[in-house]
Amino acid sequence: MTAIDPVDLTARLVRCPSVTPEEGGALVLLEAELSAAGFECTRVDRNGTSNLYARWGRKGANRTFGFNGHTDVVPVGDLDAWTVDPFGAEVKNGFMYGRGTTDMKSGVAAFAAAAIDFVRQTPPDGSIALAITGDEEGDAEDGTTALLDWMAAEGEAMSVCLVGEPTCPNEMGEMMKIGRRGSLTAWFTVIGVQGHAAYPHRANNPMPAMARLMDRLSSHELDQGTEHFDASTLAVVTIDTGNAATNVIPAQSRATVNIRYNDLHSGQSLTEWLQAEADKVAAEFGLQVQMKVKVSGESFITPPGELSDLIAKSVEAETGRKPVLSTSGGTSDARFVKNHCPVVEFGLVGKTMHQVDERVAVEQIGQLKSIYTRILTDYFG
Amino acid sequence: MTAIDPVDLTARLVRCPSVTPEEGGALVLLEAELSAAGFECTRVDRNGTSNLYARWGRKGANRTFGFNGHTDVVPVGDLDAWTVDPFGAEVKNGFMYGRGTTDMKSGVAAFAAAAIDFVRQTPPDGSIALAITGDEEGDAEDGTTALLDWMAAEGEAMSVCLVGEPTCPNEMGEMMKIGRRGSLTAWFTVIGVQGHAAYPHRANNPMPAMARLMDRLSSHELDQGTEHFDASTLAVVTIDTGNAATNVIPAQSRATVNIRYNDLHSGQSLTEWLQAEADKVAAEFGLQVQMKVKVSGESFITPPGELSDLIAKSVEAETGRKPVLSTSGGTSDARFVKNHCPVVEFGLVGKTMHQVDERVAVEQIGQLKSIYTRILTDYFG
Ligand SMILES: [Zn+2]
Ligand SMILES: [Zn+2]
Repeated sequence: MTAIDPVDLTARLVRCPSVTPEEGGALVLLEAELSAAGFECTRVDRNGTSNLYARWGRKGANRTFGFNGHTDVVPVGDLDAWTVDPFGAEVKNGFMYGRGTTDMKSGVAAFAAAAIDFVRQTPPDGSIALAITGDEEGDAEDGTTALLDWMAAEGEAMSVCLVGEPTCPNEMGEMMKIGRRGSLTAWFTVIGVQGHAAYPHRANNPMPAMARLMDRLSSHELDQGTEHFDASTLAVVTIDTGNAATNVIPAQSRATVNIRYNDLHSGQSLTEWLQAEADKVAAEFGLQVQMKVKVSGESFITPPGELSDLIAKSVEAETGRKPVLSTSGGTSDARFVKNHCPVVEFGLVGKTMHQVDERVAVEQIGQLKSIYTRILTDYFG
Repeated sequence: MTAIDPVDLTARLVRCPSVTPEEGGALVLLEAELSAAGFECTRVDRNGTSNLYARWGRKGANRTFGFNGHTDVVPVGDLDAWTVDPFGAEVKNGFMYGRGTTDMKSGVAAFAAAAIDFVRQTPPDGSIALAITGDEEGDAEDGTTALLDWMAAEGEAMSVCLVGEPTCPNEMGEMMKIGRRGSLTAWFTVIGVQGHAAYPHRANNPMPAMARLMDRLSSHELDQGTEHFDASTLAVVTIDTGNAATNVIPAQSRATVNIRYNDLHSGQSLTEWLQAEADKVAAEFGLQVQMKVKVSGESFITPPGELSDLIAKSVEAETGRKPVLSTSGGTSDARFVKNHCPVVEFGLVGKTMHQVDERVAVEQIGQLKSIYTRILTDYFG
């Protein structure tokens, strides 16, 4: 039996137009490959979102190595700006082009290929589980979460999990992620009293209160970072009022704030702080400040140890680089997996993810498969 | 010859749908009435705006009493909210309803009727000039300004001028205006560097600078008022960014500020102050702050004296109320006339101007004609 070529598998996945929430044939393709290799496959679809769970070996095995990833991709964006077919998987000068080539069809192809070849060549004493979702780029409510819910209900478990997201900023092997900062979004509405700009005493302009609140929030230093985390950051991402009349004082103004926070904070502690600041400004200006908060994910960390050592050793063996243990960047589905088992993320260079002419160095796909193979070998060795 | 009924003339003017910039038949109607009474009429149209100049008596007379007003009206707005035809001039319970009944077709009708009857009954030793524009409610660039430009070129002059805008907040006769505050609008654009909310150090978010600038401007006390003026006021009327993505730091944000200022400031002094504040914030945050300013009118005052005494005496004689000499409210065409001759404003109650179901107490139209007649009598007496 010939080994699975991860470059070919990536290309076949890229040709599936699986823009969130479309399945696009990507999970069907993976299910066929994995089933043929003896994986027990189950589609765990929920509310129109497609997900695939594949296990080789016994349910409830002592040791189950898990992989997590997604086959959905962000939209193409400005099609005219692309120099290639975004779903063509064209290879030029050592790079494969296409939406999802880095984020993260190459990652899924690499771990699927590694897992298939591994169980065929050296059937391990334990199980391998692949939890692959079709909704990571969307609101992710029925993606990896649905897989984990279903697994809990069915008694399916992973001892550890490796998420195959691209984690390297520039060079293959330079970074892995052992945690992520939390992300919270707050929407504020300041409600005053409308009026004519010539008679401001008859109105209560929401704008000065909004400016004061946003100045205070963005001036506040949340912290200076912790052992494994950068300093938390707050970004006022928009203020909008929509008042076109220069002689009218508006009734309302809205603003949105996004906070990326480390392990010194929680969604609740930040919500309490924001509410206190909103109340303070409301009292100072004698008007109403409404606030709505959404926590996309709490900060979390898998402390450096057995799992991160295992990954780091394999990465270094294959690339010559000792990966930095980072918690930087946005959110990923690791924020869900961490409630289930220790989780670490490692993948290839993500530089062009979500961009026009997204592309991956073909060489890195093979390297990634080799790294994942070595990890499996060491884990079960 | 029977006297001109100002109520009937108001109704006929209201039935002309002269929403800015439409002439709507209003100036044509006035020209016919005034010509029949021996006024020399000239249409002073400019760039599609209609204006009417009417003079009784000799050009270059020693004493020329001037009236200024407008026949254009603001749009009807929500037609379904009106309980009457906005151009019907329907009379119910002592009120005439319709767009322009208060602002200011009743005022124009009252001074036209007063002037016509006055010259017919007691031809004065001097002249009377009516400068009536069809664009006061619009951008006013070719309205009263066009009339004054043309008058200067033709050697037409007014010794004093009475603007017939509604000036009384609640009761007939309680207020006249001897000046107006200036009005300045400033548009700010803060230009930073776009980025991802998870990597704020790679971006330069314009929002904190915008919040700081708007907080500073609105916290600043411009002054505490002067002998004839209220304190100057500054209103941030809008801040807009238009960034819908909560994970994106925007490149730009825009804000608009409106200042109503008294005789302690000028458009230039305020522009310099705003520019200094913008520059300060730009330096503090290391980004660009662009500013555009428009001065709609400088503050001005016709100091209490001969003209205001004349008006006040007539108002008191007809209404029993001594009018307050005010400089409050928005801008009016008096801001243009003041460069030409002493100018004062007096008219009826403006409470419903620009509103749905705009209406005037029918009785006040007759009172206003009587007041204007008494002013002419005293002036030429
Ligand atoms: Zn991804
Ligand atoms: Zn008016």
